[in-house]
Amino acid sequence: MIIDCHGHYTTTPPAHNAFREAQQAHLDDPQLPEPSYGEISDDEIRESIEQNQLKLLRERGADMTIFSPRASWMGHHIGSDETSQVWARACNDLISRVVSLFPDNFVGGCMLPQSPGVEIERSLPELERCVAELGFVVCNLNPDPSGGHWTSPPLTDESWFPLYEKMVELSVPAMIHVSASDNVNFHATGAHYMNADTTAFMQLIQGDLFAEFPELRFIIPHGGGAVPYHWGRYRGLAAGLDKPLLREHLMRNVFFDTCVYHQPGIDLLFEVMDADNILFASEMVGAVRGIDPETGFHFDDTKRYVDALKLDDVDRHKVFEGNARRVYPRLDALLVGRGL
Amino acid sequence: MIIDCHGHYTTTPPAHNAFREAQQAHLDDPQLPEPSYGEISDDEIRESIEQNQLKLLRERGADMTIFSPRASWMGHHIGSDETSQVWARACNDLISRVVSLFPDNFVGGCMLPQSPGVEIERSLPELERCVAELGFVVCNLNPDPSGGHWTSPPLTDESWFPLYEKMVELSVPAMIHVSASDNVNFHATGAHYMNADTTAFMQLIQGDLFAEFPELRFIIPHGGGAVPYHWGRYRGLAAGLDKPLLREHLMRNVFFDTCVYHQPGIDLLFEVMDADNILFASEMVGAVRGIDPETGFHFDDTKRYVDALKLDDVDRHKVFEGNARRVYPRLDALLVGRGL
Repeated sequence: MIIDCHGHYTTTPPAHNAFREAQQAHLDDPQLPEPSYGEISDDEIRESIEQNQLKLLRERGADMTIFSPRASWMGHHIGSDETSQVWARACNDLISRVVSLFPDNFVGGCMLPQSPGVEIERSLPELERCVAELGFVVCNLNPDPSGGHWTSPPLTDESWFPLYEKMVELSVPAMIHVSASDNVNFHATGAHYMNADTTAFMQLIQGDLFAEFPELRFIIPHGGGAVPYHWGRYRGLAAGLDKPLLREHLMRNVFFDTCVYHQPGIDLLFEVMDADNILFASEMVGAVRGIDPETGFHFDDTKRYVDALKLDDVDRHKVFEGNARRVYPRLDALLVGRGL
Repeated sequence: MIIDCHGHYTTTPPAHNAFREAQQAHLDDPQLPEPSYGEISDDEIRESIEQNQLKLLRERGADMTIFSPRASWMGHHIGSDETSQVWARACNDLISRVVSLFPDNFVGGCMLPQSPGVEIERSLPELERCVAELGFVVCNLNPDPSGGHWTSPPLTDESWFPLYEKMVELSVPAMIHVSASDNVNFHATGAHYMNADTTAFMQLIQGDLFAEFPELRFIIPHGGGAVPYHWGRYRGLAAGLDKPLLREHLMRNVFFDTCVYHQPGIDLLFEVMDADNILFASEMVGAVRGIDPETGFHFDDTKRYVDALKLDDVDRHKVFEGNARRVYPRLDALLVGRGL
């Protein structure tokens, strides 16, 4: 089977979006009433999925998407801890409804109710709820809840450790994924996302996090930001910092997805990285929705690029299915339970 | 001839470094005396260059380096406008001495005396001095003088226009180059540099700067950060923003260097970018100084990677010489004046 490890619910029904708008309006003017979450019918959810993610999933020949709330709308920088708690719960509940309606095609990933300057312990109950009660298999971890001001400590700082302990306990990995940019310098999907991927990887080089947490696993999306293209630089910087070879230092615990939207980029990713470290993904319907005039196909139809590599059966299975089942053990258990 | 468009004076004599330390000590404790710049002999400069940059330049078969102050030590975030003015002048004067001692092998690039929150007009006299009096051919422009806090407006903001007007008037391009990171999230050469390259390119996509300044030229170093690897993403984002094709929107004015420290990265750069947009560079002696155990050669011996491409004579000439003479017209004039 073919598992897409990176999809967001970017086509949510209007009532969901209206709630977020009302939440923000209430922040701006506390005189306004507390917003209430409107009714969303199963049919509305079905239509929003069938016409978009599921349609494309089928057209492109994939089977299942690990599905999480719209990344750019996580907006951890907006409001307070309470704002994020309410919004994360609403977003994760909606993902859970999608998964319930389309259990063969979607499995849940949660956003965390992070907020700048708020201890990560405040995110643990929602993580636990999503995994234990809703059956989610991964969380999205925002390394910069400030939205482009980068005011939190690096991912290797001990202040993050309670989350990592909980992730290991629950047997879920994290995708490192920032949200919208609140800094005019950074276009969200064109700069902030790429920068966060690159930054996170370099933080991991500088630290020694996986000695502390050998079971911890991170997916760095968008093909690892700038990292594979500059793999020589990162190997050299690691050596200069007296770190072990990257394959020992990080690459048992860090994985890159295939959200790279042209053939030469995918070619490089697979040339430089071991197939054990690459997970198929498209991030659709996502950042880049158009058709590439050079190919006539959607930029984010990443399966075409991977297919063009003509991988042997072993590597093909790893990238499309095997690695995902290894990196997300709860997904594997779920599939095994279905006889898959 | 072979021109390396990106080298920094990372091996400056101790008196230069001591001055900077004294300048910072004076900032920390204004009771300390105003630092004075110590004596540096020509022999000291000769040795620092002959044993390092010039030795490697010759060993690797290049002829000339466009040479600028050590990027990570520009430190625009340290102190005030006055601090940066004094330090930039000292750094640029030292570059000028190198060029005077080795006129066949080095040509000058200046740092600007930028300071966070200080208008860019304050950098124009030093730029003018370096170009008109010292014969420099380019400036390094820091898009984030705050050192990783990103508090300045994007490069497309009108507040930068006085610099661009002066650059056009003087016929010098700028290399977009940040300095050290004052943000613990960003390793300087592993994250901040890459992020700045990526961020600058995306800012240029969002804006329309070259309609305003058709003669303005930027070199984005380090192989363009994440950009060539994600070229499909950037083409798609530009289309989504209703911008023209990138080759029309930006690529008459933006150039990437070859500071990519492994063969697959260089292969991708040349596969994706037109040879007209690539300038040979190594950034030595720089960020990554070691030997790649996979090849037995220095990571930053980028000429080996470019040679391995077996470019035809036309493209080879562009990348090693022709593009540099086109992008840096004052370098071309200088070479023509020498009958080269």
